[in-house]
Amino acid sequence: MIHAYAALRAGAPLEPYQFAANSLGPLDVEIAVSHCGICHSDLHLIDDEWGVSSYPLVPGHEIIGRVSRLGTQVAHLRAGQRVGVGWLAGSCMNCEQCLAGNENLCRQGRPTCVGRHGGYASAVIVDARFALALPDALKSEFAAPLLCAGITVFAPLKRQRLKKNARVGIIGLGGLGHLALQFARAMGYCVTAFSTSANKQVEARGFGADRFVDTSVAGALGAEASSCDFILSTVSADLPWPDYLNLLKPNGHLCIVGAAPGELRLPIFPLIEAQKSVGGSAVGSNGEIAEMLQFAAAHEVVPRIEYFTLKDVNDALARLRANQMRYRAVLVIDG
Amino acid sequence: MIHAYAALRAGAPLEPYQFAANSLGPLDVEIAVSHCGICHSDLHLIDDEWGVSSYPLVPGHEIIGRVSRLGTQVAHLRAGQRVGVGWLAGSCMNCEQCLAGNENLCRQGRPTCVGRHGGYASAVIVDARFALALPDALKSEFAAPLLCAGITVFAPLKRQRLKKNARVGIIGLGGLGHLALQFARAMGYCVTAFSTSANKQVEARGFGADRFVDTSVAGALGAEASSCDFILSTVSADLPWPDYLNLLKPNGHLCIVGAAPGELRLPIFPLIEAQKSVGGSAVGSNGEIAEMLQFAAAHEVVPRIEYFTLKDVNDALARLRANQMRYRAVLVIDG
Repeated sequence: MIHAYAALRAGAPLEPYQFAANSLGPLDVEIAVSHCGICHSDLHLIDDEWGVSSYPLVPGHEIIGRVSRLGTQVAHLRAGQRVGVGWLAGSCMNCEQCLAGNENLCRQGRPTCVGRHGGYASAVIVDARFALALPDALKSEFAAPLLCAGITVFAPLKRQRLKKNARVGIIGLGGLGHLALQFARAMGYCVTAFSTSANKQVEARGFGADRFVDTSVAGALGAEASSCDFILSTVSADLPWPDYLNLLKPNGHLCIVGAAPGELRLPIFPLIEAQKSVGGSAVGSNGEIAEMLQFAAAHEVVPRIEYFTLKDVNDALARLRANQMRYRAVLVIDG
Repeated sequence: MIHAYAALRAGAPLEPYQFAANSLGPLDVEIAVSHCGICHSDLHLIDDEWGVSSYPLVPGHEIIGRVSRLGTQVAHLRAGQRVGVGWLAGSCMNCEQCLAGNENLCRQGRPTCVGRHGGYASAVIVDARFALALPDALKSEFAAPLLCAGITVFAPLKRQRLKKNARVGIIGLGGLGHLALQFARAMGYCVTAFSTSANKQVEARGFGADRFVDTSVAGALGAEASSCDFILSTVSADLPWPDYLNLLKPNGHLCIVGAAPGELRLPIFPLIEAQKSVGGSAVGSNGEIAEMLQFAAAHEVVPRIEYFTLKDVNDALARLRANQMRYRAVLVIDG
């Protein structure tokens, strides 16, 4: 039996929930979970905000654990090996995107806790190709939040192929933002944190921000015009997008990874005249996750964590709902 | 004296206008104009739609001619040499963008016919570094429209670094679009033309379109969902942007080069989920223009032209205003 916590209906508190482990397909692997990060997406799924949830719903897609059972065809992992699983637990592996190594863009991608049970549990079963080996130097509790929050900010920063000392802006200083500051600094960029929370300035600098802009101050954004080669927006809120477009230098790019609810409205002429662009990014491929884990280990990118046990998971979710988490939560499951 | 045609006030018909040639700065060059393309931007400037015009205004920024006088420090050109001048006649040459070879993004860029007299004239004077040598194989009348219309579509197609056989959509089949089809086909892409003019289908295929979508047909865009790696919008109109975003494959990019008047309004979630992006592009750098001219000569990219003499320039402008030009106009000045 797998011992988990599940929401039995949309928006409900999680309850203890047990279910029999499925038999393994030939390419599957079972992982005994030791840690699972709590992501804001878990709340969206618990509340069925995206209309894709089914119940009982066991959340969790920042999973660290050890291989406990192997499918008959799995040759690249061994029993007892430490692995991590992120947003995806499988994909078709034969579409154009999968063949190009972009599993995260596969239309048949199987999210770890959508239509299947995730990592708030003693064990999970996933496609073994989505159970990624971890660098020894990376502690499990630190690796967990990297598997979704970490890759979500690492991938677009890396893909942009910026020059060293490029000027990078990070909007938002939460679970994603505090990792983005660390990655951007470690990549050699000159980093500006944009936040509405002036009281986070000292911490922002500790995470790697060279500069801090309190965006609640009138005129603060205007003073930063044409200052950024790249801006990463990690907040899930409607922003004054034209003001942020105005922060970009010519050829600059604004990438949105925070699931902002509304519409993007931008004047067209500045896009053309200064060759600016705007786009989004969704987690990352398995290859990018592997690269990110190595990078985090080498550069000591460390999530700031609050720890919870599985039975206290509702306390953790309440803090997350109240925007009080500093900065990321991890469930310690085998502790 | 330079013999030109000028608008004496906003929106006025052009009239014969003579002025004394300036003395040359050490890095300047005077060009005896043989051909000058007519671009829709010239109309915007004549009408002062962009608020940057000054009068008398001599339009023209697709200039071909021969070097007639050289500044004392110009070593790379010789008298009598055939050269071309596009949108820019100079830039600061020492800002970050100029130093990176992106003169077209310089904030001090000096457009050829804004605040100075352009190419509807017997001669122009420009910074010699913006008088670009032409491949011998390229006829002057064909080279002229390439200097603005050509580079405007070539640069974003080239910068995108698409794979051979990538699926490229070209929106609009006018002066820019008919060149974009030719360049995209010559680059080895699989090209779809999107146009509201069903009667242009045969010509579109002649220019290089593998497929033609009549966008005036209801549901035509919906049937093309997720079909394009890259879309280039060459039209100066508000488009149903979310429908075109929907045409992109994951990781796809929509580039706007037509000066659409309104706002870009897009849903944010598809940008994130499928890593799509939207941006603009503005002509191209001198290096990109030189590459484009070589490419056009090598691949026989040929503008479809209507010819006019300078004294018939108002007839040409009237046809352009009426959207009747097929597909680009060239003034033959020394004929």
